Amino acid sequence: MSFNVTFLGSGAALPTAKRSTTAQYLVCNNRYILIDCGEGTQTQIRKFGLKLQKISHILISHLHGDHFFGLPGLLSTMNLLGRNQGITVYGHPNLENLLHGMLEAGKNKLTFAINFVPLQYKDEQVIFEDRVIAISSFPLNHRIETCGFKIQEKRKDYQLDASSIKNSGLLIQHFPLLKKGQNIQLENGELRNFEDFTLPPKPSYSYAFCSDTKPNQQIIPSITNVDLLYHEATFVEADLERAKMTFHSTATQAATVAKEANVKKLILGHFSSRYENADLHLKEAKTVFQNTLIAEDGLVIDLERN
Amino acid sequence: MSFNVTFLGSGAALPTAKRSTTAQYLVCNNRYILIDCGEGTQTQIRKFGLKLQKISHILISHLHGDHFFGLPGLLSTMNLLGRNQGITVYGHPNLENLLHGMLEAGKNKLTFAINFVPLQYKDEQVIFEDRVIAISSFPLNHRIETCGFKIQEKRKDYQLDASSIKNSGLLIQHFPLLKKGQNIQLENGELRNFEDFTLPPKPSYSYAFCSDTKPNQQIIPSITNVDLLYHEATFVEADLERAKMTFHSTATQAATVAKEANVKKLILGHFSSRYENADLHLKEAKTVFQNTLIAEDGLVIDLERN
Repeated sequence: MSFNVTFLGSGAALPTAKRSTTAQYLVCNNRYILIDCGEGTQTQIRKFGLKLQKISHILISHLHGDHFFGLPGLLSTMNLLGRNQGITVYGHPNLENLLHGMLEAGKNKLTFAINFVPLQYKDEQVIFEDRVIAISSFPLNHRIETCGFKIQEKRKDYQLDASSIKNSGLLIQHFPLLKKGQNIQLENGELRNFEDFTLPPKPSYSYAFCSDTKPNQQIIPSITNVDLLYHEATFVEADLERAKMTFHSTATQAATVAKEANVKKLILGHFSSRYENADLHLKEAKTVFQNTLIAEDGLVIDLERN
Repeated sequence: MSFNVTFLGSGAALPTAKRSTTAQYLVCNNRYILIDCGEGTQTQIRKFGLKLQKISHILISHLHGDHFFGLPGLLSTMNLLGRNQGITVYGHPNLENLLHGMLEAGKNKLTFAINFVPLQYKDEQVIFEDRVIAISSFPLNHRIETCGFKIQEKRKDYQLDASSIKNSGLLIQHFPLLKKGQNIQLENGELRNFEDFTLPPKPSYSYAFCSDTKPNQQIIPSITNVDLLYHEATFVEADLERAKMTFHSTATQAATVAKEANVKKLILGHFSSRYENADLHLKEAKTVFQNTLIAEDGLVIDLERN
């Protein structure tokens, strides 16, 4: 099992030598998910030694160029490398036509299917779910329709407690049932309570992604208690007016959201290129929410190790 | 005066750590021209210390992604940086709608005009001309409609020969006429032949760009005698069949074109990512055309110094 996020691009609209535009590569229990895809994302994926063709889901928060202009190139490269497994892209309803327009301009035939799932921007909704994870989207408050995303592991199985099972009369075929929390009736009629033979499930982790947005009270229920919250912090408090005007957040505002949502850890990103570094962002955020980190291109956060 | 080309991307369809996709930044007598614009071109421009906002003309050879997927991001960045000077984009008629679709998806208002000039693919035509330079397009032979481009300086003025003008009776107001090759009648009726008071014009340079294409006899008249020819050499001779199938050229074929067109210097690029380096391309080409170079990302060639 694994749950980690690689920050491919930690900058805002203008890419710089140190900070590419927004993209994050998330691995969760062998599900490979790309969140946003600014220009140059495919190059960042290669640079950081990640697997391009493993990606099966791409979530696009909104249609500002620094969040999706890398998508035609990424999909083209998947195609050139002979991909045949379909991919699911979640985004604004207008994205589907834009993508097809760009990809079909060169008259190259796609060797794999793009399954497009349009997002809605009214309320939280589960957009993908299997037996292990669930992905939901929730509306942010930006200049154009924008979604945040939450990726969460479902409750895991109980863990077998080998020492207590010994001499209990339980057989190997009972193990999957115990792990699911079912009590067992033995052939001799005796009952075995699953709690006596298992340990609690390992924790289930969750990650929430909020970019780009004004500070927004309405997202609190969607992100409460997550293990890691990524929240944009385009500006510092001295540029609060500019943040308001552009529907972005300051580091202080992002930290306030993290605190109110009682998240375990906060990571800030989407820093305006006007700042030489994010030292002030970190300082400001820490006065409100101590457990704050700064995203850097190539940084990996393993949720299980924090 | 100056005439130089910076190779921003020397790779083929798949960008690698060493070779970005096709883009070239050309400065010719204070005209700033971008040729093709693969993904990441804006980052390469910044990396090599070139001036983004000076670009006034963008030539797009064809609509394969590795030649134009960087264009929406480049134009967006120009906009974010407050550009107000218009820009002229030359490309396939379908490009205009694609560009507007991508740029308008985010509902950002452009602060400058994009003047779009559709290319045709039938014969050579002058697509831009002023008193100093001319740009022409000519059809290549690729899987989809593709143009090559030629940028040439017009014939320059005669150079005044200060030593012979002394005591000739010629006045300062005669100098511009002499430089244009006009004879002068003095106030006393005497004639002064311009050739006696000027030196020949400095050479006028020319650059031709051919990517992507099968080797194509029909382009020879368009590129004959140019000072520098860029010609794609996606493959080496061992992969000739693959070159044929994909409407690309081998290094040997590119060199043969250069030889037949009697160009002064050849530079090869658009190398397939299957090759670790372009050593073999260079070796093959030099057996046909000695004055051959290999494009590398960041390489600058000054035509006046060669």
